[in-house]
Amino acid sequence: MHIAILSFDGFNELDCFVPLGLLNRLKPMGWSAELCGPGGMVTSMNGVNVQLQRPLEWANEADAVWFGSGLYTRAIAENSALLDRLQLDPTRQRFAAHGAGALLLARLGLLGEVPACTDGAARPWLVEAGVRVLSEPFYARGPVATAGGGLASLYLMAWMIWNRAGEPTARDVLGHAAPVGQKTEYIDSLLAQVRPFMATLTASGPPTSPPPSPPTSPP
Amino acid sequence: MHIAILSFDGFNELDCFVPLGLLNRLKPMGWSAELCGPGGMVTSMNGVNVQLQRPLEWANEADAVWFGSGLYTRAIAENSALLDRLQLDPTRQRFAAHGAGALLLARLGLLGEVPACTDGAARPWLVEAGVRVLSEPFYARGPVATAGGGLASLYLMAWMIWNRAGEPTARDVLGHAAPVGQKTEYIDSLLAQVRPFMATLTASGPPTSPPPSPPTSPP
Repeated sequence: MHIAILSFDGFNELDCFVPLGLLNRLKPMGWSAELCGPGGMVTSMNGVNVQLQRPLEWANEADAVWFGSGLYTRAIAENSALLDRLQLDPTRQRFAAHGAGALLLARLGLLGEVPACTDGAARPWLVEAGVRVLSEPFYARGPVATAGGGLASLYLMAWMIWNRAGEPTARDVLGHAAPVGQKTEYIDSLLAQVRPFMATLTASGPPTSPPPSPPTSPP
Repeated sequence: MHIAILSFDGFNELDCFVPLGLLNRLKPMGWSAELCGPGGMVTSMNGVNVQLQRPLEWANEADAVWFGSGLYTRAIAENSALLDRLQLDPTRQRFAAHGAGALLLARLGLLGEVPACTDGAARPWLVEAGVRVLSEPFYARGPVATAGGGLASLYLMAWMIWNRAGEPTARDVLGHAAPVGQKTEYIDSLLAQVRPFMATLTASGPPTSPPPSPPTSPP
């Protein structure tokens, strides 16, 4: 399971490095998550220069592609020369988008009629792009999942790992995010948000009931 | 308020980049958090090459120093040539340590008799170093705070921001970590863990009561 974490100049550090750190906990099972983008080096939104691990086109070969947010997501979404280098395949690949990253999903035609979660700043751009935006932290249908708000990327990870490697493996990885002494409640709360969407990869439609109200969300 | 996030080869991405991303939300108030360490470039625990923003000695001038964990923390704790370059001052600076980072605090003599939180892997090293290790996610006394487990660094940030810039500012920054639609419960839950320690910078001892349930409403 190779996961391409798309990283452009101005990328949000949380959106790229939290999944990078946690998904690579599954290296012993053959998973890998790598930073992938145009050029050799990118500068994060707070000025850290980071060497990319893979070229942008590597995303086309990956099993899953991760779309974070960043300072210039809107400009990237308008840059067709850049986006044309991505030839993604929803019949074979999974897609997770966080915050403004959902705008790239929309521009790449990967969202279709599926509604999306995002953050407050990116919401108007998605609406403008014709996407139905939800006021929830997480939503998934078929090969696409979206999340909005800071560390809501944990929901995306839970979804991706649970789908491919089962719930116990998801619990194990999320345990690496949980504070000491709070692991069970923390993981239960994360999985409760994702559970209603876990049938959608094999079913043809969205979940028939709305997600339940989650228990108090984890720190 | 300048915060030096110590970054050595093998550093844990979550421990360095989550505080970097969130503390820099306070740039408009004059805060900055930068990666600081020996050499020009370090490689993270999952193989990402990152350019350091400041030399190691910059930590001596900073207002606060952040100690994350990493693959080689134990070896670094034994490397006195490296640690001797740090001349930190508990009368002027604040220290936050996450996971194995507490071992560096201990070796630098900054922990004194203060007990510490850490993660399961680093626990025996701290015990060996004579530190009393707690089974809690967060503890603070005087200028030192420690936390254990994945994203428990959020407690360290809450403590640091609340101390220097007040609770409403801490709420505001933590809002950038919270999932959409869950911000109030999320922030309340984080601050409830930190609140009992908020008197300790001026008081002489540890808190005497357990964390209360937080009734506070968002700003």
